[in-house]
Amino acid sequence: MMRRPVARNNPPPNNFMTTKLSPLAPAGFPDLPDIDGVRFATAEAGIKYNNRRDLLLAVFDKGCQVAGVFTKSRCPSAPVEWCRDNISNGSARALVVNSGNANAFTGKKGSAATRDTARAAAKAVKCRTGDVFLASTGVIGEPLDSGKFSDLLGTMAGNVSTGGWEAAAETIMTTDTFAKGSSRTIQIDGQDIIINGIAKGAGMIAPDMATMLSFIFTDAPISSEILQHCLGRSIGGSFNSITVDSDTSTSDTVLVFATGAAAKRGVQTIDAKADRRLRGFRAALDEVLVDLAQQVVRDGEGASKFITVQVDGAVSARSAKKVALSIANSPLVKTAVAGEDANWGRVVMAVGKAGEPADRDKLAIWFGDIRVAFEGERDAAYDEDRAADYMKNDEVTIRVDMGLGRGKAQVWTCDLTKDYIAINADYRS
Amino acid sequence: MMRRPVARNNPPPNNFMTTKLSPLAPAGFPDLPDIDGVRFATAEAGIKYNNRRDLLLAVFDKGCQVAGVFTKSRCPSAPVEWCRDNISNGSARALVVNSGNANAFTGKKGSAATRDTARAAAKAVKCRTGDVFLASTGVIGEPLDSGKFSDLLGTMAGNVSTGGWEAAAETIMTTDTFAKGSSRTIQIDGQDIIINGIAKGAGMIAPDMATMLSFIFTDAPISSEILQHCLGRSIGGSFNSITVDSDTSTSDTVLVFATGAAAKRGVQTIDAKADRRLRGFRAALDEVLVDLAQQVVRDGEGASKFITVQVDGAVSARSAKKVALSIANSPLVKTAVAGEDANWGRVVMAVGKAGEPADRDKLAIWFGDIRVAFEGERDAAYDEDRAADYMKNDEVTIRVDMGLGRGKAQVWTCDLTKDYIAINADYRS
Repeated sequence: MMRRPVARNNPPPNNFMTTKLSPLAPAGFPDLPDIDGVRFATAEAGIKYNNRRDLLLAVFDKGCQVAGVFTKSRCPSAPVEWCRDNISNGSARALVVNSGNANAFTGKKGSAATRDTARAAAKAVKCRTGDVFLASTGVIGEPLDSGKFSDLLGTMAGNVSTGGWEAAAETIMTTDTFAKGSSRTIQIDGQDIIINGIAKGAGMIAPDMATMLSFIFTDAPISSEILQHCLGRSIGGSFNSITVDSDTSTSDTVLVFATGAAAKRGVQTIDAKADRRLRGFRAALDEVLVDLAQQVVRDGEGASKFITVQVDGAVSARSAKKVALSIANSPLVKTAVAGEDANWGRVVMAVGKAGEPADRDKLAIWFGDIRVAFEGERDAAYDEDRAADYMKNDEVTIRVDMGLGRGKAQVWTCDLTKDYIAINADYRS
Repeated sequence: MMRRPVARNNPPPNNFMTTKLSPLAPAGFPDLPDIDGVRFATAEAGIKYNNRRDLLLAVFDKGCQVAGVFTKSRCPSAPVEWCRDNISNGSARALVVNSGNANAFTGKKGSAATRDTARAAAKAVKCRTGDVFLASTGVIGEPLDSGKFSDLLGTMAGNVSTGGWEAAAETIMTTDTFAKGSSRTIQIDGQDIIINGIAKGAGMIAPDMATMLSFIFTDAPISSEILQHCLGRSIGGSFNSITVDSDTSTSDTVLVFATGAAAKRGVQTIDAKADRRLRGFRAALDEVLVDLAQQVVRDGEGASKFITVQVDGAVSARSAKKVALSIANSPLVKTAVAGEDANWGRVVMAVGKAGEPADRDKLAIWFGDIRVAFEGERDAAYDEDRAADYMKNDEVTIRVDMGLGRGKAQVWTCDLTKDYIAINADYRS
């Protein structure tokens, strides 16, 4: 995929306290083609920030289908509850996202704010309130004054236009240091079908869900049921396979909007799981979600290293994933990587604490292609200098073979640095 | 309990990289009375450190009973396996503890090292190898050269003496910044019965087990079965109720040794659960274990605040503990406390991610006696300045009322600071 060279339309539009671009950031925001039936407008509503866009309106043509997955938190935000209540309708005409305030743990005022926002958007777009989807991100526990932006939505609805993907991605940022976008184009029935996605998230990132917010858009003609099926399959290996700090947001939301505009070019609607054309669509959706999920990790608060954890030889895929997440969430493993220390003893510790079947004397561990441990002890051929060199890389892969079965899993995380503490010890004050 | 004022026998005998005493340390090591039938010797074996004692031998009179609990790690250290294999014998004559090397993930060499050490100790003390208990703490994955200290054990066995509790506690330290001890005296059958304990641990601390190593000694005449029963009851509310970094060691070990020497003063042996004299013994054992567990938290790597998390109103005690640990292990909660930020939104997040029954709109949250949230939103009477003042304390209590039932739990943890990263990004290199 093409990535624009370093030039950015805007200076990084955050920030609570740092404007330092993550060292793991991609070279630039990718080129996202227009999608027929998707139009954006952004505005400065002054919700928390000054002099930055913090309100995004997306408007969809009639017939747009929608699917979504949400945080598993038992204390979800008001917008998450709103979306959950409406997702089964399957149709969407508008999406309103604000940054600066999560509208989470705001009691009845929170529900009122979502209702008011949805009404204002429905009036502006001329649709049912149930066709309006909402997301909010930022501080938890502060009442969201929807009056600050309800009036703006009318003006914004009059100004929406195709394109503007980077501006949209920037508008939803909080502690992010770069805007996150991804795109794939596939062929269905001889026509180009586009899948674009944007995401935000840098901390409070752990399954399930992993990102705080991500929105995917496609012109594929596909029913909401099939869309939900595809999203459910893709999420496990993407947003539910990343972790920054093991903390799970009250607001995590992934929504996929399918305008169906490609039908005008003769593409038949996909409305059955058995449809063979789904295969390519699913693969492209997987790629977009994995790309965005990895970008969230690359923007992990304070991150200096991108870590891939691969576990194979486990008794099952589920067991492998639990072990992989135990490694990826271990503060001691993450600080060792920050210190460029090939400390496989801490990997053993994390395998052991996962509570999954493990036989110490069958374990093997690699950093990159360097096998550091084999059959329950240090590899006889282990070369400490080579391992130390490897750990200096920006991207580090830790691989564990459990030696028990065929279950495997892969997750992504980042290291734990003093900058994580600096960012989070001061976020709200 | 008396604590000696600041004077210490030795400078802090660690350290990998810091000698800065934890700001949460007690004023000094407490006075631990002699226990009839327990004698110590310490030595400098040069296992990893220079110019510090790293080898502890405890010798027990014949008839000493023992009970133990161990890490739940699926990849335990060789000494943990040794102790597990021998604990059911119920009798102990010697304990050998080394610091500097955990003898964990050392394969067959690790088992050989434990066997060799136990044999050397058995020869020195003139007992069966099965009556020797072992513990090792320090780096994981490096072969332990037991030859370095096997020879020393004979000399040490000739030099053992009563007392020397602080030296014993110092000998087993790794990244600890202070030696940990506790003592209680109770009356049974009109006689003084002493319970002394020492512990080490500062990182890789999470249930279950929570401390890395703790050894408890008493002159109570009590059978190993009853001792095991008491230990099992006490551990849940003490070492299994603390967490520093959610990481679980491969080596966690708590052993209780009961010499029974008080029988010489006419105290009848306790060998039934229904024995009414157990009540006082259990209460004192609880106090010693809680005291030691809290000292481990006070020495948490990089800790600047001691945090008590209380959860009540949960559907069960088990559910309450899971929520409490979710709060106590949340990096975002811990960094907020480090930043002296009464960020109850992160507490809500941690309640939500625990996966336990929760009704957002019934939650109430306190920092100290300041109610910050009530019925799912910010308390109308909440005074931010008062909360900010409270957060400046060295000791902070976070209380959550789930509003659902009568289940309650209490756990202890510390904040997450840049010093934790500094200590752990550099431990092994």
